[in-house]
Amino acid sequence: MNYRFADKVKALKPSAIREIFKSLSDPTIISFAGGNPNPASFPTDIIGKISSEIFSDPLRAASALQYSVTDGYPPLVEKLTKRQKEKFGMGTQNDKLIITTGGQQAADLVCKVLCNEGDVVICENPSFIGAMNAFRANGAKLVGVPLDDDGINTDILEEKIRQNGDKVKLIYVIPNFQNPAGLTMSAEKRRKVYEIAKKYGILIFEDNPYGELRFEGGHIPPIKAMDTEGLVLYCSSFSKILSAGMRVGYLQGPEEVVQKVVVAKQVNDVHTNIFFQMVCDEFIGKYDLDGQIAKICDLYGKKCALMLGEMDKKFPSCVKYTRPQGGLFLWCTLPDNIDVAQFVKLALEKKVAVVTGAAFLADQTETTHCFRMNYSMPTDEQIVQGVDILAQVINGLIG
Amino acid sequence: MNYRFADKVKALKPSAIREIFKSLSDPTIISFAGGNPNPASFPTDIIGKISSEIFSDPLRAASALQYSVTDGYPPLVEKLTKRQKEKFGMGTQNDKLIITTGGQQAADLVCKVLCNEGDVVICENPSFIGAMNAFRANGAKLVGVPLDDDGINTDILEEKIRQNGDKVKLIYVIPNFQNPAGLTMSAEKRRKVYEIAKKYGILIFEDNPYGELRFEGGHIPPIKAMDTEGLVLYCSSFSKILSAGMRVGYLQGPEEVVQKVVVAKQVNDVHTNIFFQMVCDEFIGKYDLDGQIAKICDLYGKKCALMLGEMDKKFPSCVKYTRPQGGLFLWCTLPDNIDVAQFVKLALEKKVAVVTGAAFLADQTETTHCFRMNYSMPTDEQIVQGVDILAQVINGLIG
Repeated sequence: MNYRFADKVKALKPSAIREIFKSLSDPTIISFAGGNPNPASFPTDIIGKISSEIFSDPLRAASALQYSVTDGYPPLVEKLTKRQKEKFGMGTQNDKLIITTGGQQAADLVCKVLCNEGDVVICENPSFIGAMNAFRANGAKLVGVPLDDDGINTDILEEKIRQNGDKVKLIYVIPNFQNPAGLTMSAEKRRKVYEIAKKYGILIFEDNPYGELRFEGGHIPPIKAMDTEGLVLYCSSFSKILSAGMRVGYLQGPEEVVQKVVVAKQVNDVHTNIFFQMVCDEFIGKYDLDGQIAKICDLYGKKCALMLGEMDKKFPSCVKYTRPQGGLFLWCTLPDNIDVAQFVKLALEKKVAVVTGAAFLADQTETTHCFRMNYSMPTDEQIVQGVDILAQVINGLIG
Repeated sequence: MNYRFADKVKALKPSAIREIFKSLSDPTIISFAGGNPNPASFPTDIIGKISSEIFSDPLRAASALQYSVTDGYPPLVEKLTKRQKEKFGMGTQNDKLIITTGGQQAADLVCKVLCNEGDVVICENPSFIGAMNAFRANGAKLVGVPLDDDGINTDILEEKIRQNGDKVKLIYVIPNFQNPAGLTMSAEKRRKVYEIAKKYGILIFEDNPYGELRFEGGHIPPIKAMDTEGLVLYCSSFSKILSAGMRVGYLQGPEEVVQKVVVAKQVNDVHTNIFFQMVCDEFIGKYDLDGQIAKICDLYGKKCALMLGEMDKKFPSCVKYTRPQGGLFLWCTLPDNIDVAQFVKLALEKKVAVVTGAAFLADQTETTHCFRMNYSMPTDEQIVQGVDILAQVINGLIG
C-alpha cells in the first residue's frame, strides 16, 4: 500500500529530544539532554491524599470518571483566573481561561485556529522545539528572530514583520528563562514587543511554563499583564510545578480567540482528564502551592549554581554560556572552530548527553555552535562528573 | 482588534451535543440527548484501589507523574496488542498500536496526517458528530453515504469514491451499534467495504467505541481482523467500558501511518496522561475486564429493552426506529409531515431532550426526519416518563 500523507506532515520528524528520551534507557549515561522536572519535586503524598479523597467520595469519583465540558473543570478555571489576576495582574473581562492537555496542546490549537498553510509564526531563534514543531505540523512557516541578552531583538522582529506582511499571524515568545537559551526578556523589551504587536495588529503567544521557577533576581510582569487590547494569548501549565505526567495546562486570552480554541479542542480530545484537574483545584484551594513552588526554586537554584560553578572552573574561557535566573536550562556557545555536531557525538560516546543547538532553530539547516544543558534532572554527582567530561571533550577538540 | 482565523475553522461551531450538555444543568429535564456512559458502570472501587497502590509506591508514583513516551505506557501497549490479537484476531507484524487521548484524538490526528485541505473523507450518513467535526476542522470535505439496515450502502460508497477520485483519503465507519443510528454492519458488508478500499487504495478508519457492548446477537469480526494489506486504522477506547473522564483510547494500524500519528500527537499533547494508562494496564492485568464489560452489557441491554418496549407501546406506528443489539443509542424516523426541529423544540419545552438528526449529517442542510435517543444515562423511571412525553408530543403534531 502506497500511503498518501498530508503535505504539511510529510517532512515532520519526531522531536530530537523525545527521541533522545528513548535512547536514554542506558542508566550509565549522564543526561543533560532532557527537560524533565526532577521527580523529587513531585508532591506525591499530597496528590495521593487528594486522589484517595476523590475516589472515596462517590459523587466526586463519578465526576472524575465521567465526560465533562471542554473548557475545563469549572472550579479550577475559576481559581486559576483569580490567581492570574491577583498574583500577576493578568486577565480582563474580555479574556477567557481554558484548561488544555499540557501547554503543548495550547500551542498546537492556537496555531491551528489562526494559521492557514503558509502563514507565518515569528519565534525567538533558538526556541522551544515542541511549539515550533506544532506550528510546522499546522503548515505554518517559522521565521526566527535572534535573541539578545535581554530577549528578542526587536529591530529584527519589526523588520521580519514588515517583510512578511499580512502572512504574520503570531509572535511566539518565552519571556522567562527561555527554553533553550535560559535568558529572560527585560521589562523594557516586553513593552516593546507588545507595542510592535499592537502597531501591526498581530497576536502574541506568551509561553510561560517556567515563569514561577525564579531562583534569582526580581519578578518581571508578564506581557499579558499589560494587555489592554486583547493581543496576548498567555499559556502556562502545572507540568513544572506539580507534575508533567498529569498533562494539565492552561491558556488565557481574548475570548473570541479562546472560544475558537475550545471548539478545536472539543474535536481534538473532548476535554482534558478531569481527575487531575480536580487534583490541581484541590492543591490550589487547600494546600500550599506557593510553598511547593518555593521548594522547587530552591532545588533548581542549587543545581544551576553547581553546574555553573563547575563550568566556570573547568570549561575553557572560549566557551560562552548563559547564567539563568530560573527555569531548567542553560545554553552554551562553543568557539567557531569546533563543530557542535561532532562535540555532541563525542560527548555521547563518553556517556554524557546534551542537545545540539540545531534542534532549536527555526531553520534547522542554519549553522550553530551552541548546545543546551539541563540541570533539573541530573544528580549533583552527575553534574560534577558530566561537566568534567564535557570539559575534557571540549579541550580535546580545541587541541 | 480584528482577529483573523484560519479558513478551515472559521465556520466551525461547537458540537450540538456538547452545547446541550451545558444547557442540561436543569435537573428537571429528562435527557435522552447525551451519550455519557452510566456512572453506575464505573468500577470506582477498583480504580480507587489501583490509584492508592500507585501513589503509595514511590517508583510507580514517579512514573505516573513524570513525562513519558508519546506512543503510550509500554505495558499497556503490550497488553492491548495481545488482547486485540487473541480476543478479536486484529493486528499483524506490520501494525502498531498507540495510546491516544480518547478515541477522539485518533480521529483528529489521523485526518491531520492524511488530509490536505479539500481532501475527502467518506462517512456513513448519519455519523458521529465528534469525528465529523474533527475531519471538518482539518479542512477535509465530508461525503456522506446512506446507511442500509445492514450498514453503509456499498453501491453508493463506490460511486462516491469514483466521483471524488484521488481526493478520497479515508472511509470512516462505525460498524457496531453505530452512533447515531444504532445499526450494525453485517459481516458481508464489512468484507465488501474492505474489498472496495483495497480496489481503490483507500484507508478505512474503523471506529469501534461500543463494539464490546453487545447485549444481543452474535459477535461479528471487525474489518481490521481481515486486514492483510495494511488498509485499516482501528480505533477504540476505555471511555465506554471503564471511564470516559480518564481520556484513554487507542489506535491500531499500519506502522507507517501510525508512526506519523505519533509525531502529530507528540506536538499535540506530548503523551496521554500516564496515570490512567497505568490504571487501564492494571485493570487488564489483575482484574476482570470482561466481567466488567458483561455488567455494562446487562445494564444497557435492560435499559434499551425498556425504552423499546415503551416506544412499542406508546409511539404511533408511523414512527420508525432501529432496534440496537448493543451500544448506547437508537434512531427514530418521524413521518414526513412532521418537522423534526419543531418536534425537538416542543419536546424540550416538555422537559425531554433528544438530538435532531440534522446534527449527524455530513451535509447539515439536508432534510431529515430523524432524531437520536440515548438509553445509557436515564433512569428507568425517566425512560418510561420520557417516552410517554415524546409520544404525546408526536401525537400532538400528527393532530
